[in-house]
Amino acid sequence: MYVGKKVTRVDAFDKVNGRTRYTDDLCDKSAYIAKVLHSTIAHGRVVSIDTTEAEKIPGVVRVFTCFDVKEKHYFPTAGHPWSTDPSHQDVADRLVLTEEVKFYGDDIAAVVAENEVAASQAIRALKVTYEEYPFVLDVLESMKDGAPQIHKEYPNNILKHTTIRKGNYEEAIREPGLTKVEGWYTTPTVQHCHIENFICFAEMTGDRIKVVTSTQIPHIVRRVVGQALGVDWGNIQVIKPYIGGGFGNKQDVLYEPLCAWLCQQIGGHLVKLDVSREETFVSTRVRHAITNHIISWVRPDGTFAARKLEAFSDQGAYASHGHSIVAKGAGAFPQLYPCENVECDAYTVFTNKSVAGAMRGYGIPQAMWAVECHTEEVAAKMGMDPITFRRKNLMPVGYVDQFSKNELYSDTFNQCIDKGMQETDFLRKYEAYKNQTGDVRRGIGMAVFWYNTAVWPISLETSSCRMVLNQDGSFQVQLGETEIGQGADTAYTQMAADIVGVPLNMVHVVSCQDTDVTPFGTGAYASRQTYTAGFSIRQTGLLLKERILKYAQELTRMPAYNLDIADGKIIRKTDNRELMTLGELATEALYSLQHSEHLSAESTAQIKSNAYSFGCTFAEVEVDIPMCKVKLLDIVNVHDAGTIINPALAEAQVHGGMSMGIGFGLSEKLLYDAKTGRALNNNLLDYKMSTFMDHPRLRAFFVENPEPTSAFGTKALGEPPTCSIAPAIRNAVYQATGVFVNDAPVNPHNLFKRLREEKLV
Amino acid sequence: MYVGKKVTRVDAFDKVNGRTRYTDDLCDKSAYIAKVLHSTIAHGRVVSIDTTEAEKIPGVVRVFTCFDVKEKHYFPTAGHPWSTDPSHQDVADRLVLTEEVKFYGDDIAAVVAENEVAASQAIRALKVTYEEYPFVLDVLESMKDGAPQIHKEYPNNILKHTTIRKGNYEEAIREPGLTKVEGWYTTPTVQHCHIENFICFAEMTGDRIKVVTSTQIPHIVRRVVGQALGVDWGNIQVIKPYIGGGFGNKQDVLYEPLCAWLCQQIGGHLVKLDVSREETFVSTRVRHAITNHIISWVRPDGTFAARKLEAFSDQGAYASHGHSIVAKGAGAFPQLYPCENVECDAYTVFTNKSVAGAMRGYGIPQAMWAVECHTEEVAAKMGMDPITFRRKNLMPVGYVDQFSKNELYSDTFNQCIDKGMQETDFLRKYEAYKNQTGDVRRGIGMAVFWYNTAVWPISLETSSCRMVLNQDGSFQVQLGETEIGQGADTAYTQMAADIVGVPLNMVHVVSCQDTDVTPFGTGAYASRQTYTAGFSIRQTGLLLKERILKYAQELTRMPAYNLDIADGKIIRKTDNRELMTLGELATEALYSLQHSEHLSAESTAQIKSNAYSFGCTFAEVEVDIPMCKVKLLDIVNVHDAGTIINPALAEAQVHGGMSMGIGFGLSEKLLYDAKTGRALNNNLLDYKMSTFMDHPRLRAFFVENPEPTSAFGTKALGEPPTCSIAPAIRNAVYQATGVFVNDAPVNPHNLFKRLREEKLV
Repeated sequence: MYVGKKVTRVDAFDKVNGRTRYTDDLCDKSAYIAKVLHSTIAHGRVVSIDTTEAEKIPGVVRVFTCFDVKEKHYFPTAGHPWSTDPSHQDVADRLVLTEEVKFYGDDIAAVVAENEVAASQAIRALKVTYEEYPFVLDVLESMKDGAPQIHKEYPNNILKHTTIRKGNYEEAIREPGLTKVEGWYTTPTVQHCHIENFICFAEMTGDRIKVVTSTQIPHIVRRVVGQALGVDWGNIQVIKPYIGGGFGNKQDVLYEPLCAWLCQQIGGHLVKLDVSREETFVSTRVRHAITNHIISWVRPDGTFAARKLEAFSDQGAYASHGHSIVAKGAGAFPQLYPCENVECDAYTVFTNKSVAGAMRGYGIPQAMWAVECHTEEVAAKMGMDPITFRRKNLMPVGYVDQFSKNELYSDTFNQCIDKGMQETDFLRKYEAYKNQTGDVRRGIGMAVFWYNTAVWPISLETSSCRMVLNQDGSFQVQLGETEIGQGADTAYTQMAADIVGVPLNMVHVVSCQDTDVTPFGTGAYASRQTYTAGFSIRQTGLLLKERILKYAQELTRMPAYNLDIADGKIIRKTDNRELMTLGELATEALYSLQHSEHLSAESTAQIKSNAYSFGCTFAEVEVDIPMCKVKLLDIVNVHDAGTIINPALAEAQVHGGMSMGIGFGLSEKLLYDAKTGRALNNNLLDYKMSTFMDHPRLRAFFVENPEPTSAFGTKALGEPPTCSIAPAIRNAVYQATGVFVNDAPVNPHNLFKRLREEKLV
Repeated sequence: MYVGKKVTRVDAFDKVNGRTRYTDDLCDKSAYIAKVLHSTIAHGRVVSIDTTEAEKIPGVVRVFTCFDVKEKHYFPTAGHPWSTDPSHQDVADRLVLTEEVKFYGDDIAAVVAENEVAASQAIRALKVTYEEYPFVLDVLESMKDGAPQIHKEYPNNILKHTTIRKGNYEEAIREPGLTKVEGWYTTPTVQHCHIENFICFAEMTGDRIKVVTSTQIPHIVRRVVGQALGVDWGNIQVIKPYIGGGFGNKQDVLYEPLCAWLCQQIGGHLVKLDVSREETFVSTRVRHAITNHIISWVRPDGTFAARKLEAFSDQGAYASHGHSIVAKGAGAFPQLYPCENVECDAYTVFTNKSVAGAMRGYGIPQAMWAVECHTEEVAAKMGMDPITFRRKNLMPVGYVDQFSKNELYSDTFNQCIDKGMQETDFLRKYEAYKNQTGDVRRGIGMAVFWYNTAVWPISLETSSCRMVLNQDGSFQVQLGETEIGQGADTAYTQMAADIVGVPLNMVHVVSCQDTDVTPFGTGAYASRQTYTAGFSIRQTGLLLKERILKYAQELTRMPAYNLDIADGKIIRKTDNRELMTLGELATEALYSLQHSEHLSAESTAQIKSNAYSFGCTFAEVEVDIPMCKVKLLDIVNVHDAGTIINPALAEAQVHGGMSMGIGFGLSEKLLYDAKTGRALNNNLLDYKMSTFMDHPRLRAFFVENPEPTSAFGTKALGEPPTCSIAPAIRNAVYQATGVFVNDAPVNPHNLFKRLREEKLV
């Protein structure tokens, strides 16, 4: 059995050798180069674009402005499964180029040229006349009457407002003896900063348009390109090569529609659209900045009588993933610390800023920032230590969410917390760090997180898989759930080998998705990969095995029920005798003059379950108070992701998430100029990403409670590592300083403000 | 219905726009360049190769000589399906590089360099020392005792000798009153001259080797590369892009094993091996030159009492397709003009010449040259007109071949001959051209041909197909039977559209084969495409339709038996009402929250039938006797290929074959230097290919008798057009001059010889 073992990544050798081919590596040199002109105002209307000078530049093929978009096929961009129910479809508010500018960086024109230089020169030579409107950058300002209206269909710029009501909040808060704890908690706009910027290229073959793109969601891109061009979806072919990360940014359809449209407009010639880092920061997607307001009413025994959450999510200029992000966080609120009386109000609000979309954690890092900052305050105010307080209030074993039907099957929270305490020597340090004085102080803190796996029942969960047997008994596995660097192909290899009964090197996962031949799967997001694909791998693997054993019956004359496959051999169950190798069977099946058959299997697994995935972070910090600087000394993540398919890959995945969480907690924030709406630090020099220079050793631990609903006992692990890092650091800073920082990140700027307020500096 | 209609080729637009990508277009520029050193002796042993100077050349990566091939994995090269019965496997007599030189042009060393120039310089810098052996170029000389022995396992250089015995020849010839007609008929070595020379490139990903190659037979190449490298076949991935013709040369595994081996030896780096025209002529494959000896014993009434054929096939230096070519011709002999008493002896004989392999017609052009030259002589000698004589003796309706079980279901020969006579005004011209005098004379002649379709029962016939439904109801079709320029993809599109019930533009045939994901099919050869793939398209299309209608039952609540698909819509049979479009169904099936399913179908069709495919050629010539020059005035081919899927493509296919046949009949011959064994005219300047400048209007007609065994009524059409051209021209020359030319081609050289013998010049 390979599930559970630290096998080497199937793509390791090629990556080390530089043999892995990414989108740009696959683009023919004959490609035309497309570049986009982005708006230099935050809100307004393009009155005219003078293309005269641009068109004179040698090498320019065509200049397209927003006025050339005659057929207005509005399209959505969120990487969500399509819904045939119009009321569940994503908002279709984008055009490939727009006259109506909604943020500084909007796409208003594009140039197709024979080379990069000509394309860049032509972009600079375009002269735009705008009619400028007032703009708004702040989410609460944007909701006010009289604020600039960004989409006419949405009064007060509210894309969506949803509520959760449980019990009777107003009545419950009248219970005598309650302590009220209230706070506002904000998270910044951050960007994914995947290594490979977005890139795609498109070419027509016959009537069809082929798009090769750095995406997490090839099958969804196919559909959206079809929508954007008004073309039958089957006439779009999308190919996803190996990609250099996505983290949710590539769970959005980015410039594929524009690239395909440009290709179509020039008669189908190959066109490449390669996005710069600066454009990636501003004009692709960012994480939603969310302003949260929480009120808790706590009984003297430390239990919650009533709770209220208001969350205001900064959507930026277009709907993209929209309300689903803040809704996920709001959904977590009543579950993580269950309480009889709850009110949640979640708002998604347009502003004239970069478009917010999916990003690792999908609203939960923001929600956990709010909830776990707040929880620390409640515990402090109640005079309880933060761990005892949490253990008392966290979701109990047996808890069932009535909407998702998710159940907490095991005592996972206590197990994870126990492990984290043990690994960090928490109790001793927590005592030792009490009552410090001096300029440099240490603190230890922690936070928990709530997560669920995949998207059922909010959306469709479906995964199709195909397996194709080779002459030597090895077989290919095709899936729509994409490898995006996280190691999915390796996990699939392990699962498939176990299910069919072959050595690992007899499984060849087809890493590249091609919507023409890859079975339908919606892609990589929602930490769904091993959970969702696991179902279709198991189902299809069993189908392949059944077909193999049926053929084995012809060759061995033993009934199929007395046959099995183990280590790549057909064995007779009754005496475990090896009757033939799978290779011998496969070769005979292909070439038999009596009964020739290319053995394969293909099936769709629809998944109507979902699974909780929990864990916690423990962080130890040293705070230099005069310098307002936090140094992270130790950080530990503990996860219950069910069965761990590959401990080495799981650990690597957690390390990556922890690094991203450290940046979110300590340094990252995309800044906007209040006067123009322009992003100020749209590059990797000025935007302070956390790197391994900023980290202590990242330590990851697992508590394995196999998920009973899951095909391989797994549940979400891709996104959870990033969810509880920031509040754990913030809570450690609190222990060190006694100061609550409620605005992420805990960078010198925010820390100074709070230390000054508390008169420590 | 689209079958039978002149629809436009599905690849037409891309070919016209230059958007079709061939192997070289797909090779990354980072590729190393491999070049091969060919022997400059015809027979001998490489004693040593001095690589010192070559290795000094900047840019040379590695030099490999035959002595570097340590693991001697002998492999076969014929594009035949594998047989699990060792006695039916092709002869494995090749190594990637060889010390034992067997022809002038054998592969003895190779260079891998960073660029073309370095590779070419290094090849020239290699210094070879040979031990030379005597060599033999003539097939009859080669069989003699004492001739140079080419392969030690084959005494007298006879690769194989097979016999057919029917009745009692020796007894039958004693019948009184018989006329004996005897002749020797030879055909030359010719080359395929496909536009795109052979090219491939290889790269390793992980442990696997990916080979992209210009081949007709990707799945067979996979197997042979595995054999040649001693690697599990599943670790080889072969991709076949669009190719620029093959005509059987690419039904052989050519330099894929060497390229893959070089790639493997240098650690997996991308290596390209691009073969020049000169190398294509000499070191890939040629058509077998065959020397035929026929004796017929004819009764006064013009019927055959006994017949004998001896055929000596020049295999060149290695076995390749070997005996199967001359055996096919020998198999035709007793069938085309059935006779009670027959003796056939077919020999395949090694010589120190270029290796002979498959070429359009696969032995039948050579056999028809012999048989139809001979038939003309018999008719002449018996004082009968050639048409009356043939009608009397040709295979009768109802004839059944006991081996193949092929049956002649209709009066196809007479129908074809009638059509040819009518189109050429044969009777009038035949009369008019009698008894000419003068220097320039005209003649009209004809010949018939025998062909069968695909390779059952000699070898396996199997075809797997997969169909994948898109959201818009369109679907992809994947097959291992390759498009090689002949229009197969268009024919498949028509068939699939009819079977499933959709408009033509809703079928997308995946033109590029990738052995990792393409269902198993052996490739393009034996005129098997529409016949063989037709079975799997029909079977898989019906399976897809069944699945669609089963899902339609869920959506429409009508029983599946009351549903059908027509013009891309689900209809209720009872009242022909359109219930929904296929696109609506497919979209609902994919995205349904109740029952999500990616509808697809995959199945293998094993074909245990075969079909006769007959026809004839009529040719009219003008012979300039003093100039010994033949001018072709008119040429007509008539074919019964069963149902014609696409008359425009069928006509184009016949035109191509006619052109090739004209070259075979009038001008083409690869010459070898008797002193060295070197090919003398290995280029398109000196080798006299027939081009459209040499042609009259090529006229093609069809007699459609749908083949009852066939999935779509089709049978062979790819190769037959080339089979009866040469003897028809030769017979026309005979009518013009009264001189029989028995050595093809009827070029001035051969014609002069015969005219001189007959004292006409």
